[in-house]
Formats: sequence, C-alpha cells, structure tokens
Amino acid sequence: MKINQFSIINAEPQQEQAELQAIHLLKDGDMAISAAKLWQFLLLRMHGGIDSPLTGQEWLHDILATPTVAVDDWLAGNAALTTPVFYRVALQLLNFEPEVDFTLNDPLKFWDQVNLPRRDHDTWSAADVVDAIYLLLNTRGKNGQTLIDSLTSQGFLKWTYQLPVTDKPLFFNGKPLACFDPHEFIREVVYVETGMDTDFDGQADLVKAEIIRPQESNVKKFPAVFTASPYNQGTNDEWGEKSTHNVNHQLHHKNPNYQAPVEASFPTNFARQAVKGTAPHATATFTSTPAYTLNNYLAVRGYAIVYSAGIGTKDSDGLQTCGSPEQTAAMKAVVEWLHGDRRAFTDRHSGLLTTASWCNGNVAMTGRSYLGTLSTAVATTGVAGLKAIISEAAISSWYDYYRENGLVRAAGGFQGEDADTLANETFSRTKRPADFQRIKPTYLKYIKQLAVAMDRQTGNYNAFWANRDYRPNISKIKAAVMMVHGLNDTNVKPSNVKALADRLQEMPVTSKLILHQGQHIYINAFQSLDFSEMVNLWLANKLWAVDNNADNALPNVLVQSNKLPETWTAYDQWTAGKPVIYHLQAGRLTSAAGESATCQFNDQRSPADYQAWCRKPAKWQAALVKDDGHFSCRFISDKLDHSLILRGTPHLSLQVASSEDHGMISAELIDWGSTKRLTTSPVLINRGGLPLGYHWASDDLREFKFQKEASPYKMISSGHINLQNRHRPDQTEDLRAGQLVDVSLDLQPIFHELAAGHQLGLIIYSTDYEFTLRGNEDITYTLPLERATLTIPGSQEER
Amino acid sequence: MKINQFSIINAEPQQEQAELQAIHLLKDGDMAISAAKLWQFLLLRMHGGIDSPLTGQEWLHDILATPTVAVDDWLAGNAALTTPVFYRVALQLLNFEPEVDFTLNDPLKFWDQVNLPRRDHDTWSAADVVDAIYLLLNTRGKNGQTLIDSLTSQGFLKWTYQLPVTDKPLFFNGKPLACFDPHEFIREVVYVETGMDTDFDGQADLVKAEIIRPQESNVKKFPAVFTASPYNQGTNDEWGEKSTHNVNHQLHHKNPNYQAPVEASFPTNFARQAVKGTAPHATATFTSTPAYTLNNYLAVRGYAIVYSAGIGTKDSDGLQTCGSPEQTAAMKAVVEWLHGDRRAFTDRHSGLLTTASWCNGNVAMTGRSYLGTLSTAVATTGVAGLKAIISEAAISSWYDYYRENGLVRAAGGFQGEDADTLANETFSRTKRPADFQRIKPTYLKYIKQLAVAMDRQTGNYNAFWANRDYRPNISKIKAAVMMVHGLNDTNVKPSNVKALADRLQEMPVTSKLILHQGQHIYINAFQSLDFSEMVNLWLANKLWAVDNNADNALPNVLVQSNKLPETWTAYDQWTAGKPVIYHLQAGRLTSAAGESATCQFNDQRSPADYQAWCRKPAKWQAALVKDDGHFSCRFISDKLDHSLILRGTPHLSLQVASSEDHGMISAELIDWGSTKRLTTSPVLINRGGLPLGYHWASDDLREFKFQKEASPYKMISSGHINLQNRHRPDQTEDLRAGQLVDVSLDLQPIFHELAAGHQLGLIIYSTDYEFTLRGNEDITYTLPLERATLTIPGSQEER
Repeated sequence: MKINQFSIINAEPQQEQAELQAIHLLKDGDMAISAAKLWQFLLLRMHGGIDSPLTGQEWLHDILATPTVAVDDWLAGNAALTTPVFYRVALQLLNFEPEVDFTLNDPLKFWDQVNLPRRDHDTWSAADVVDAIYLLLNTRGKNGQTLIDSLTSQGFLKWTYQLPVTDKPLFFNGKPLACFDPHEFIREVVYVETGMDTDFDGQADLVKAEIIRPQESNVKKFPAVFTASPYNQGTNDEWGEKSTHNVNHQLHHKNPNYQAPVEASFPTNFARQAVKGTAPHATATFTSTPAYTLNNYLAVRGYAIVYSAGIGTKDSDGLQTCGSPEQTAAMKAVVEWLHGDRRAFTDRHSGLLTTASWCNGNVAMTGRSYLGTLSTAVATTGVAGLKAIISEAAISSWYDYYRENGLVRAAGGFQGEDADTLANETFSRTKRPADFQRIKPTYLKYIKQLAVAMDRQTGNYNAFWANRDYRPNISKIKAAVMMVHGLNDTNVKPSNVKALADRLQEMPVTSKLILHQGQHIYINAFQSLDFSEMVNLWLANKLWAVDNNADNALPNVLVQSNKLPETWTAYDQWTAGKPVIYHLQAGRLTSAAGESATCQFNDQRSPADYQAWCRKPAKWQAALVKDDGHFSCRFISDKLDHSLILRGTPHLSLQVASSEDHGMISAELIDWGSTKRLTTSPVLINRGGLPLGYHWASDDLREFKFQKEASPYKMISSGHINLQNRHRPDQTEDLRAGQLVDVSLDLQPIFHELAAGHQLGLIIYSTDYEFTLRGNEDITYTLPLERATLTIPGSQEER
Repeated sequence: MKINQFSIINAEPQQEQAELQAIHLLKDGDMAISAAKLWQFLLLRMHGGIDSPLTGQEWLHDILATPTVAVDDWLAGNAALTTPVFYRVALQLLNFEPEVDFTLNDPLKFWDQVNLPRRDHDTWSAADVVDAIYLLLNTRGKNGQTLIDSLTSQGFLKWTYQLPVTDKPLFFNGKPLACFDPHEFIREVVYVETGMDTDFDGQADLVKAEIIRPQESNVKKFPAVFTASPYNQGTNDEWGEKSTHNVNHQLHHKNPNYQAPVEASFPTNFARQAVKGTAPHATATFTSTPAYTLNNYLAVRGYAIVYSAGIGTKDSDGLQTCGSPEQTAAMKAVVEWLHGDRRAFTDRHSGLLTTASWCNGNVAMTGRSYLGTLSTAVATTGVAGLKAIISEAAISSWYDYYRENGLVRAAGGFQGEDADTLANETFSRTKRPADFQRIKPTYLKYIKQLAVAMDRQTGNYNAFWANRDYRPNISKIKAAVMMVHGLNDTNVKPSNVKALADRLQEMPVTSKLILHQGQHIYINAFQSLDFSEMVNLWLANKLWAVDNNADNALPNVLVQSNKLPETWTAYDQWTAGKPVIYHLQAGRLTSAAGESATCQFNDQRSPADYQAWCRKPAKWQAALVKDDGHFSCRFISDKLDHSLILRGTPHLSLQVASSEDHGMISAELIDWGSTKRLTTSPVLINRGGLPLGYHWASDDLREFKFQKEASPYKMISSGHINLQNRHRPDQTEDLRAGQLVDVSLDLQPIFHELAAGHQLGLIIYSTDYEFTLRGNEDITYTLPLERATLTIPGSQEER
C-alpha cells in the first residue's frame, strides 16, 4: 500500500498552533507542559475523552504504545515520548491494523513504506508534539481520509456549526473544514433566462438550476461549485438504444466535391418574459438531485453546489443539441446569473426575479465526461466569474469523440452512438409527459436535420463539428483549469485532454493535469491519492481567495505509474525527453532504417469470425494480436534492456495502397511482455465506506489493483484514418484502386513505462471492430515500408 | 414487469376518509364537491401545489389526462372524471413512462398487466375518488415504493415531525408512516451484562449494544427492532483466510468406536460489577454502524433500532464461539434488557446502570445469514419480550451448515471454512489493538480446542454440533416467525429453513415463509415485491399491537416462480400434492420399476482436470453434467408433457459398494431443458435509487431478471453422504471394501416448476468439488439399481 498526498502545505509553528487552537485541540498553557502529557491531552481531546476520564482512559487502554503496553499504562510509567511510540499510536489512529498492516516492532518502517509524511524528532518537546500532531491530522489513513476529516465525520467538529459566520469557513492547512451543517442546507430552484430560443416557441429559453447552499449563505456570500450535467434530470435509455446506428456496413468512396450539409439555426427573434418584481428569495425547492460525490465533499466545507441540466431537459426549455454553442451558452447563463450578470426567475410564470445574493460571484465548474466537457466549453467563452474548472475526462472537440480523420469512429463500448443518439438519450423533457407531447414534433424535426448535419456519410469534419470544437477558443480561457484524464480512457480519448493541456501550457492561466491509469472514471474516492483534498485546497485559493500557495503546492502534471502500485509522480509537462524513432521493417521495429520490405493484408474475414467479432469486439482484439499477417501487419521491437517511459503523441507515417477506391488504416501500439498489470477499473474496497461529512453523504472507497493473473500484452494507443482524408479531416481527396498514397496520423497520446525485457509492438490493420465501421469487404492493403516510421516525441529511461 | 403487493389491507370508506384527513390530503367539506374537482384538489395537495396556484397549475400542465391533453387543460373542459383518465394519470404519478412503459391509449391494459390493484368505477363520485386515491397511495410504482412512501421521501410528511407524540406513529392502511425526523435520532451505546464469563477473566461479560431511536421515545415508549450481527464491529478477513482448511485430501476410514472430542466449558464462578447508581440516560454515543437497510426503513417509521455484535467483538467482552449457547445467551441478554429483565451499564467502569425506559418491551429481531441465525437461536430460548423474528437465510442447525451426513461439507463458495474460521473472522476485539494483545493467549487457546471439538476428522454430529443445533428447542419458540430463504441459496441451504418451518407449522405460533429464487441475498429492495411494507404491517401488529389483520393478510407460504418473471404465489404449505416416485434404471428415471441394471463409476480424474476443477469448481459442474458414465451415473426422465411443480424434500434410496473401506456418495437433481432462467443474483436497477425516508438513508433498487441467453440445465438440489454414516450422522458404521450397503439420504428441499418438455435429471457421483473434500482417490463405486428410488413428496400439475 502507498498513500500519495499533494495537498499538504507547509505551515510555520505559529500557524500550526493557531490552527490547532481554532479547532479546540490546543489550549492556552499547553506549550508549557511535558511532551508526553501534551500528547496525552491531544489524543484525549481528539477522542472526546478528556472531559470523561473513564471513557478516555478506556480508549487509551485500547491502543498500544509499545508492542505489549497500552497507552494509559505506558503513560503511567512517566517515560519520555519517543518517535516509535508516537508513530505506532499514529498508525492505529489512522486505522492501520497491527499484524495485518504493520508489525508492532517497527512502525516507522511501515510508515515510510506507505509514504506517510513525518518529521524527525530526536527528543520530543511540546513543540515537537504540536508539529507532529498537526502533520498527523493532515495525514491520510487506511480509510482514504485525512485524520482530521475522519474525526470530523465522527462529529469532532459538530460544535463548529454554531460558530459565528464571520469565523467560517474554518481553514486548516489551507483547506476549509467540514463546519457547515448539512441538515440545515437550503435547497432551491431558479429558472435562468438564456438569450436564445432553441425550442422555437418564440420565448427565451429558461433553464432550471438547483442550488444546495449552507444556511450561513443567507448572511455571508459563498462561492459556487457548478456542475452542468445534461443527464441530471433523467435519461431516455430505450430511445437512446433505438437510435443507435448500424455500423456493420462498408465504407464508400467519397466524392471530393461533395457538399457538406449545413446545420439548422435557431430563431434570433423571440420575446423575453415580462418582469413583475423581485422576490426576496427563491420560492421553489427540491428534495434531491443526482450528485457528484466530490461536490458532496465540498458542500459541507463552504461551497454552494449548483446543478443544471441545461436546455432540452426536464423543467427547462429548449432542445438537446449535443455540445453546440447553444448548450454552452445555456450553462454559461447559469454562471452569469451566479456572477450577477443575468436574470433568473423564481418560477416559469410569475415574472418574479431572484438574484444569487448569497453568491460571492466566484464560480468553479466540476464533473466528468459530458459534464467536464461543458466545463471546458463554458471556460472557452471566457465568462466573468468562472475562476476555475476541474474538467475530468472531458471532450475538447466532439469530432474527436465521434469521428477520426474522416472516419465515423465510436467511443469505446458505444459502437453506433452518434450526436443524435446522445441528444435523444438526454432529452429529458420526456419526463414531463404533457410537455413532451407538445414539444415532440419540434424536437423530432430538429433531430432529423441534426442527424443529417453530423454527416455519417463522409465522416468529415464540417461546420457541425466546428460548432462543437472548443479548441479554437482555448485562448479565451480565463479560468484556472485542472484536467483529469485516464490514460486508458477509450471513451473520451486522451487526445481530447492533450489538445487542451498543450495549448494551456502556452497561456498565462494556471493549468494542472492529472493523468491516471483508469478508464473513464472518477478518482475522488481513492485510497492512495488525496484528490478531494487537492481540489479543496485549490478551490479555497480560487474561490475563497485564500493565500494557501495552492498553485505551487500542486504539481503541474501528475502521472500515475502504470508499473508500480499506487505510485504518482510529479512532472512539468506531458511530452519531454528524447524522441524515439522506429523504422518499420519485415515484422520488426528498428532504430535504424534497413532493408525495405512490403507488407500486405486482406481485411475480409470468414462470416463466422465476422459475426463473433461484431458481437464481442474483445474476441477480435485477442485474434488481432495473434494474427500472423492475414488481416494485419505486425512490427515488434527488440526487447528493451532498460525500462523506458514513452511520453507524448505517437506519430505514424506510411505509404498505403488499397485494392479498392476507398479504405481505412488503423494502428495499435502494444506493450508486449507478460506481467501483472493494473486494472483500469478501480476495485471496490469499502462500499459506502468513505463518509464525506458528519451524518452526510458517503462514497465507495476504491483503488486500482493489479490483475490477479499476468497478461501477455497491453494495448496502449490506437489511431484510425480514412485514406481519402490523408491530409485533413475536413478535406476529401480522391483515391483510385491500387493508388499508393502517403498517409500520416497521430495515435492517442501516451505516458507509458515499457518495462525492461518488454517489446514495443505496432499492429497495422483496417477494420477496428471496437471503433470503426465494420464492412468485412474484400480489400487488400499493400504497404511498402521503405519510408514507414513510428515516432514517439519524448522518452525517458528508468533504471 | 409485474408488481406484487401483499401488504395492502382492506379498509372501510370511513377509515379511508379518516386516514386521508389525518395526512392532510382530505379536508372537511371535500366530499360535497364534484369528483373531478376533488381529484384535482387531491393531486395538487399531493404535489404541494394547492397553496401555490402557479406551480400547481404548471405541474398539472406536465401530466397527460388524455393522450394529447394535459390535466389542467382537460379540467378546464369540465368533463366528468373517467377510469382511463384516472389511471392514465395514476401511472404517471407512479413514475411509469408513456411510450416507454405503457401506451397512452390504453392505460388500463398496462395497469392490469403489471398487476396493480384497482377497483371498477362506472361513474365517478367524490367517494369513488377518495377510494381510488386511497388505494393508489398504497400502490407501488416503478421505483419500488408505494406512492405514499414516494411522496414521503420527497418531504410530503415533513410537517408530521412536529405532531404531538400522542398522535404518533401515524398509521396508514395499517402501517406506520415515516413521521419521525431522522436528523433528531438519538444514538446511544449501552453495555449489557450477561450471565457468563466466556473470556475467563473472572468477570461477567459485558456486550455493547448500539441504539438508534426517535427523539419522541424520550416521552413515549417505542418497540425495538434488534439485529444481532457478529460482523457489525468489523471482520478479520486476512485471519479468516489464513485459518481456512485444506480440503484437497482423501476421506479416511472411520473407526466405529472413535471417541468424539468434548467441547471446553466456560467458568461458572465469576464476579459481577458493583453497581454505583443509575444514570438518568445513556452517556456514550456513536456516529454510525453498519445498517440493515430494512432497519433504516423502519427507523423513521416508529421503531427503535438496536445492533449488537455480541461476545468476542470490539468493545464487548468474551470470545467468539460460532453459534454456541453462550453466543445466543449474549444476544438474548440484549432482548432481556430491552424488556426490563436484565441490567446494563452506561460504560464499562462507572458502575452506573441504564435502563431501556424508552422501550415498550416489545422486541423483534431481523437480519440475514448469521444475523438471522441468531434471531432463530434467541427465539428458541422463548425469551420474554421477543414478539417476532424475521429470520432470513438463517441456519437452524450449524451441522447443516458445515457438515452433512458424516461429511465435512462446505457452504457454497466457502470451501475449507469451518466454525473456527468464522470465529476468527468475526473476533473483532482485534480492532482494539491493546485489548487484543491482552486477550490473545486466552482466545488462541480456546479456538484450538474449538477446532478439535468441531472434529473435521470424522465429520460426525457430536456434542459440539448438538450445542449449535437449535431444532430441539423450536418447541420453546413464543415469537411469531417470518422466514425468508432463497431456493437457490447454496450458502445457508434450504434444509435449514425447511426444518424450522415444518416444525413451526405444527405449533400455535404464527409463522410465515417466503421462498424466493435468489441466492444468499436480501429481498427488501425489490421492485416487484412489497417485502418492506409486509414487514412494516406485520411488526405494527406484533410490536405496536395494532389490530391490522396482518396475520390474515400475509400469505402463510409465499413462493416466487422460477418460471415466470416477478411472479409470487401464495400457498398454505411447502410440501403438498401427489408424491412422485422415480425408479433408477440404466440412464433413466422411470415411474415404474423395470429391468434391473448396475451403474459403476470411478472417482479419480486426471491431475490436470483435478487441479483445474479445484481452482474453479464451476468447470467441474460443467463437466459433470456432460459426463458419460466415467465419474458419475446419470438418470433422466422422459420429457414432461405438462408443467409440474415439485414440492418438498427429495429422498434418494440406493445400494452402494465402494472399492475401498471408505467412501461418499453425492447426488444432484437437474432441471434439464434449454430455456432462459432467472438470475439468482438480483440485477441492479437503480443504485441508491430507493429512498427510505426524507433526506435519510437509501437503498439500491434491484430485481431478479432473466438470463440474456438460454441455459441448457439448472441444478435444483443436491445431497451428500458418508457411506459410514448410512443411518445417522452421529453414528459411525463399519465399511469394508466391496461391501454393498443400503444408503438413503435427503436432498435439499425444492419448490420448483419443471416446464413441459423439460426432463428431470439425477446425477450420482462422489467428490463434489464445490462442497466436499477432494481426495481424487482411485475408488470405484458400484450401484445395483434394482431397489434404487428417488421420491419427491409433493407435486402439482400446471397447465
């Protein structure tokens, strides 16, 4: 086990003492007593046993100071406090178990092994105890919480609910503590007026926002953490499934003069609601809404939480447009209202305005996938008030989500899904049955043209996708950006975050990047990483304007190792180090160009294989890596004599001829070598075992674990290209059967340690059963390899 | 989809009106207005929109009265209320979705198809509306809740928190509503003094009990729902794993004169704590404890919830004894304290007594598996105050859990586990490290003799198992007993519940039996069955002494169909109908005796198969049903020409000779026929989607679903016997190599519908890789079949 904390900031002894006093752990005069006595007092105060000598004594009698003597008995001996005694007890406070997790004889060995922070104290003074206890309170235990958070979830800070609001939030080590009573939260609903009419009813669209805020925000202004989630008001799973497209058909020759379809536009003329006054406060309320657990963590720590599903969802107006500027504008409108720049109503009809008078105007956006995508999208508008976004597994260009280099290319696990499918899936106005009946004709008409505009015929980048490409506007971002992405995310692929991160690094805004080894997942309930605390530290700085050194404390690029368990390393950038260039030869990847060879394969498979692979693409993948030149070409490097970290976006240059007047080329990079690898889905450690506050919501504690059995290889990157889009995704070029063309493409970016003894593999093939159209057409691809290269822009040796 | 409700009781119109008035839905004078108007008012009052005309109007505008007209518009037309309009709207209130779940044109068709209750109204008067709305409030919707519970979880009854305690609980249709504020719950800890000293420290063992009770219980006496869970204070998973026994060894010849080991006894001389006074109330508190979600459901409905882990757990005294009379006595002690018959202290040292003055003396016990087992065990003591138990998947004799007919035989999925393993697993005094260091030598010494006393050498029933057999004391049960068991429970096998249910049916106490198609699971969060409401109705009767006809309303035996989805049928007993007798012939099960044959098989398999099957017993099972007479004999009936429900405990009579002086025979009953079957583990429908109160705990909504692909067979029963225990499990008989002996054994009880066209299969073999020792010994078994029969005591034709 290893625990990685990046959110602990350095504090001066004076600050430590002041903060310990503020949470009632340290009292006046404490610094004058002996180290052991002070230690005893602090332990008892943590436990609530100092005012109840019997139960305090009993509790100390349960904890081992030495391998055989309990703390109370050890204290009775009047010995001087030692480092082993302190950390042996500390481990028990952090819920590590003697004999299961650590040996009682050597607590420091385990402490250091698990990577827990400590300072060296030769002899222990009262000041040493204060310093060590302060650090200990900020240290994470076995249950995925810092000790202070763990105590808090047991009621240690219940008294802070009554503190004067001027003293709140209570900050500890730069982060606000859970000092807001969740049972007193105010839940209210407002209807934000947008500047659009996307449902063609002649009225400006209203979008519903749901707010959860501490009652203290009635008398003091709080920042807002806003999650824009089109899923939050319900989904149409059946409809989504029904509108999934067939992908089992051939690719066709594209006419270079093809005219791209044009997307419909929305009315520019519409009415706004007549204002009849201003309500003193919001009047509508709600009971619950699907929550991001990170927001639950923040909610009791002094942030108002806001959810909106935006246009085309239950209780809002408008249509579902799948990432269009209008959807972005609807979410931006919520930020504008929070910042005081836009109006909202208490309900849909009264004409009574309601203001976010409880908000200090500082807003952050959070969420993963579509939610993170909308955070990114809103940030690219440069909207005032948006101080930070934490965009997790976010799309930065929808073309990279549903298309690739002139191909229809699915998100992993969602073959046949497209922009229209997702729109149908999230159009939750269905959940108000009568509202749906009224809007249905308008929506169906709209979605029909959307399906044309997205253009599955060519797979080309066109105006529709340009409308949903946030990258040209990255330069407008004013918010600080924290990006989180899984290096194994086959749903929203890493190219999305790389494009954003690369551009942000050149800009004057703060950007932080966290790359984990997971699939399309959240990382806020992990045992080994203090992500929630990092966010709390960072948002305290961005939204409460606390001078806590957050930007320096948090690494710029934090990467989870694919090789070692629970190991996270700080870097300055994604791509760095020496480029690696491989030449493709017969069956081999070589560092120097050598004899030229030609590779050839035919894409057509037997009907039995074809059907089996369509049903279970994993079977295709298994067959692909075993294929001996029938439907793919394979190139393998020598065994590495030392471990190598490959960093950046691999680039492949080829010459290809298709036996037909159309065709596509796919490629996979493989880490070849038998070893136990990390699972890309986290393993559940404790269902509901991570409390986020005192009698408040909880989360499931999770961690990436190693596979139980070794796997022979791992696919680490892939890419796909239409031979008619060999220069640009928006430009169709002609192709004749047998014509040899130059093709070059980026594969998905990597940050991958290839272990010593492993080989790098490259497989070139055509149909990707997991991602592309599956035509099973009789096409032979011929690749002269003389000039074929694979380039990885950065690398670094690990010995 | 089908919904099954058994907890709705008949009510007279007057009672319906009174109850609707009590929940503020119906007002004085309402009966004088028109049906449609009254319907409108009731809808608006449910929604909270009657005092806010704008939002009320808007909400009615979202619901369809006809396929195209919203309720508000329909009301404006002043039409008379009709049955289709009422039930079309009702379906929407129950969260069924038009076009997804039902067609708008014919709501009644779906209503009846789903098995929702309704009454026929030709024309609608105000009285009809009241009657229909009352029934509707008691009707379950798509989200696994009755409408009244669904409204309640949205805050509809928030105002009842302030009701005078004399008016609480508020009963509706015989069941208390969620009218107790969970944010005001009192959580307290007491230490109950038992009359034993199981940890040999010279002092009576104290056991900790954790109590969660409404604040109203400070001024009114409430009943208690108590869950006895040895797991609740933590488990030692690693230790449990380490002390798992090796099962990959041979069976040995047993000496008929073998002397069974004797179990150690506990001190009879010990001191009791000196009493120094009585505290006005408990002084220790706790934050949270692992909860049974059914208890969470009940907690807000007027039941105090009590948890105790008993002896040998964190914060309690004593050792873990695995189902011994001492463990039972410790749990009984908690009931006695609740009933006022035993003392408890506020803490371990002060000597201050604390009484359960908040308790009305009526106690129920709940929980599954070990928890249900202890409910059964305590009930067999006949302890005063225990009015009811709901024992789910409970053991009634530990011999049936870890042994069978003179064999060591595991619980499904837990090969090598035994009584000592479970004791180690649950001995959570480890979680107080210093306490554990002090008790460790005593515990290790005790567990060593326990491991001898349980006797894995012979697998015989002895004094140790007699101590853990609750069946001889069933006659002492005074509590009403509700039993829940999975017909596919391979962990705690159905023989456990059958033995209890059969005996209870002969006794004057109330007993209810629910047999579901699941494995070892809870059934309180299912979409299709109102189990929580049944429990609420029943406990209102047993603990609040409400005259609600619960015993008549609830079926005596309720069985889930293995053939039809979401279908539950009421019966009067388990075994009924015509016995079915099969004769075993060469390869066939026949109704008449015919030519005599002999079957022979050898138990030894290749080392490769052996190792693979030990690792994955599922592979063995797959090989067994395909085996063609090598290591098993197979007997198959003709195809059934009509569907047949087989009911009761199958019995097998055989003659067997082993080629060695030891041996065992196993048998499986198979439902042979390709069909899609129900999954035995429920499928998650909505994670956390079942709220149990207003801003309170939630559960995951689940349901059994059909497998996605047809399976060729299903194992429906099994049994195992040592040839040296051919008459009694406690009696070893001699066996010589080649000696032909009569053997007869019960298989696991069944309630199984064999579909027309299916065949009943019987497989006889020896080593059961999932359940028995696995010796892979070269033994040949010879079975002359002349007198071999399989008897199923009851059956019933279904056409």
